[in-house]
Amino acid sequence: MQCTVEILSIGNELLLGNTVNTNASWIASRVTALGGKVTRITTVADNLNGISQTIREALRRKPDFLITTGGIGPTFDDMSLKGVARALHLRIRVDKNAVEMLRAHYARRFPNQRIPLTKPRLKMASIPTSSTPILNPVGSAPGVRLIAHATEIFCLPGVPSEAKAIFQDTVSKAIKARSKGTVFVEKWFRVRGVPESSLAPEVSGVMRRWRGVYIKSHPRGIDMNGRPKIELHLSIASEKPREARSIVHSAAKDIRKRLIVLGAQVKP
Amino acid sequence: MQCTVEILSIGNELLLGNTVNTNASWIASRVTALGGKVTRITTVADNLNGISQTIREALRRKPDFLITTGGIGPTFDDMSLKGVARALHLRIRVDKNAVEMLRAHYARRFPNQRIPLTKPRLKMASIPTSSTPILNPVGSAPGVRLIAHATEIFCLPGVPSEAKAIFQDTVSKAIKARSKGTVFVEKWFRVRGVPESSLAPEVSGVMRRWRGVYIKSHPRGIDMNGRPKIELHLSIASEKPREARSIVHSAAKDIRKRLIVLGAQVKP
Repeated sequence: MQCTVEILSIGNELLLGNTVNTNASWIASRVTALGGKVTRITTVADNLNGISQTIREALRRKPDFLITTGGIGPTFDDMSLKGVARALHLRIRVDKNAVEMLRAHYARRFPNQRIPLTKPRLKMASIPTSSTPILNPVGSAPGVRLIAHATEIFCLPGVPSEAKAIFQDTVSKAIKARSKGTVFVEKWFRVRGVPESSLAPEVSGVMRRWRGVYIKSHPRGIDMNGRPKIELHLSIASEKPREARSIVHSAAKDIRKRLIVLGAQVKP
Repeated sequence: MQCTVEILSIGNELLLGNTVNTNASWIASRVTALGGKVTRITTVADNLNGISQTIREALRRKPDFLITTGGIGPTFDDMSLKGVARALHLRIRVDKNAVEMLRAHYARRFPNQRIPLTKPRLKMASIPTSSTPILNPVGSAPGVRLIAHATEIFCLPGVPSEAKAIFQDTVSKAIKARSKGTVFVEKWFRVRGVPESSLAPEVSGVMRRWRGVYIKSHPRGIDMNGRPKIELHLSIASEKPREARSIVHSAAKDIRKRLIVLGAQVKP
């Protein structure tokens, strides 16, 4: 079975438009490649009520995984873990393993200084009861993992390198295990010379003929000669890898033929 | 009063991770600059139930504006307008003005061909009852504007150049009119040599002293000498421009002084 994943991006910088949400698209592309399906991405502010509310909403939709990014650092407005705790009626407690992770991080990072575990630093080791910390191999704040009803929650940092590292080390394994056997097969085409509205009926025709394949057209403006440029993406998520590859192959041949009949130029 | 804006990004490509949601961050940065406040960004698939459900959820939160992007083109999976109609119990009808806009678009775009208004093309002129089409100056599908309870809804295309053009022409004016008098004042600093956890108490201290200013720290890795790099963003949205600028100025001076005491290097 294809497992479902929701992403919750937490951070005022995303809502101010200062930061493009590359974490969400990177995680989504990894989840897709691992055979999972991202069903929703929500971005909310660093606000305790807002965070706990959106976590409750997400859990009601019962995704297999909920991945949050951002809001687990040392500053006053890092409140994602408090939000998780409030949504699930849990308390926050200083976790011994998380403290050890922080100690090791600061010793490695500043070998010639004694970095005391001040309040802002201990905050990063303060996680919901019944959750476990996840080693952050490239930064200070540990990730957090816990189970809530039908959903496994992972809380990752907002710093992209840290979110990616924890995802690769830990989250990806959990998703892969849950989506075992599901493969994602895809193929891209570049099409020139027909507008999307001419291509639309052919896309529908091919999808009706080759069941399971999904075709998305992405208009990419016009070329120097005024011809419309479109990228076509064919994909399928399936537990039958050979069949999936064969369907995508056949659908690709079919759409290619139809587009050439329309007078389009198709690559590759 | 600062008006509130929700963004609903519609498109499987965003959930597959094929496309980074630059539309949402671009719109958010424009809304912020116009004095508005983006309160939530939601990304959902090209799925009729999902779209109408998220629109209903958004309207329940009563934002002043709801801006959707994507899903208003000619292909079978463009169903944002159907989603709006279903959420609001409206019907879809072919709009005469929208048809004229399409005719004019194709005549301008393909001056030497007669482009018939086929079903996929007419689909782009099929909009909810009580909504009005908005001229798309750079593409085919018109935008759509309608009022639902306390919220003004704008449906924009997913193609970034088209979304931006309609936003600039039309949406920005509506937001500016509603956020009249609210200014957004901001200032960036680059800080080197202290970890975020050392800076955290100073950020809180400055925010307590200079009421209304919001300070966000963005860790940006380490430099060649192993020193932490952080970007600090000070901002305030206010109806009193002079006071706002003065608070940001004072808070900036204050945080700068504190960071230098900590041994940090601060630019500019």
